[in-house]
Amino acid sequence: MPQIMVVKDIMSVNDELAARVRAQLDDAGVLALNIMASPGAGKTSVITRTVEALKADYRIAALDGDVATVDVEKIARTGIPVELINTGGNCHLDANMVHRALPTLDLSGVDLLLVENVGNLICPAAFELGTHYNVVIASVPEGDDKPYKYPAMFRGADVLLLNKTDLLQYLQFDVEYFRHGVEVLNPGLTFLPVSAQTGDGFETWLSWIRAAIAKKKGA
Amino acid sequence: MPQIMVVKDIMSVNDELAARVRAQLDDAGVLALNIMASPGAGKTSVITRTVEALKADYRIAALDGDVATVDVEKIARTGIPVELINTGGNCHLDANMVHRALPTLDLSGVDLLLVENVGNLICPAAFELGTHYNVVIASVPEGDDKPYKYPAMFRGADVLLLNKTDLLQYLQFDVEYFRHGVEVLNPGLTFLPVSAQTGDGFETWLSWIRAAIAKKKGA
Repeated sequence: MPQIMVVKDIMSVNDELAARVRAQLDDAGVLALNIMASPGAGKTSVITRTVEALKADYRIAALDGDVATVDVEKIARTGIPVELINTGGNCHLDANMVHRALPTLDLSGVDLLLVENVGNLICPAAFELGTHYNVVIASVPEGDDKPYKYPAMFRGADVLLLNKTDLLQYLQFDVEYFRHGVEVLNPGLTFLPVSAQTGDGFETWLSWIRAAIAKKKGA
Repeated sequence: MPQIMVVKDIMSVNDELAARVRAQLDDAGVLALNIMASPGAGKTSVITRTVEALKADYRIAALDGDVATVDVEKIARTGIPVELINTGGNCHLDANMVHRALPTLDLSGVDLLLVENVGNLICPAAFELGTHYNVVIASVPEGDDKPYKYPAMFRGADVLLLNKTDLLQYLQFDVEYFRHGVEVLNPGLTFLPVSAQTGDGFETWLSWIRAAIAKKKGA
């Protein structure tokens, strides 16, 4: 079946490039996070709040995969170097895009690279980028059934932020049902409820990042 | 450039199948809506509320494009015939999937076919299905910048439902900024703020559907 062979080819090329990206990041001592979510789940808000909280202690850079330029401007206002990867309408980043974007950032001295993937719960899950951890952001208004409906994305997550917890009081959202759906798919995952609006839960998320950077430096 | 030729081929095959779907729908006198949105914007809630309000007056059927089976069960509970199109991980419906699913529904006597696309603001916009109107659902918690970030989806909409207006009181969402973003892209579109939770704004949406069905019957 030629169709399947083509898909295999694309995937093996992607994985090769992801391995090259990983090697460049490791050589430069950079911890890289692939941040994925639905449109409007709060990727950019989580990123800007994270950068504001950590930029005094770490050198941070960002890559922003997008079909338009709104988010990159918001991230740039935090003062860190950020490059737009315009996917040209494509619904996910791939390793080739990241591989080509890396030379535009000066990685020397960078501790943390935040890669904002395209807003989409399906396609980004299939493409390794060479980053070290997959961070998936779900948000309360999307509903507590999301892990049951988009299993691949939740299965591949290392860290899951449940964002917009400040809206739990106004919405029917069963946190235990949501969490159960996630843990059946992915028992080892780190589950962190947060609000990028109020900052609730951010200390735990920031501690997770600090520990991951320290581990990277020690590696 | 062979890559571009392949894409062209896929698109022209899709458009051919979309034309066949359209002919079948027209022959059967069925009005069909392609309902698109982000994950969690409320496609299924809008559909079930719409069906409950209209099922006494019209015969309604549904096709549910999904990577899992949660929504089709919710729609089935309204008592209308509904078929799942399992996209097998694919991030959008295409005309071929709809063309193959149509014979599983008995279209004779059906007035309205609701096609729920996969939750995604990017890929579904590129694939005509043969339906008569594109209905895009955006939701207040996704943020007022969505038209600026996902222009293709908003450009292709005939009707835009802004759902979850019951949450406007809790969130920073500038309806005029949102609406301006949409109208710059798509001046002729019908813009309807609604809440599938409270039913707010639904009368206008239901009137729009009633008028479209009447127009179809008269055509």
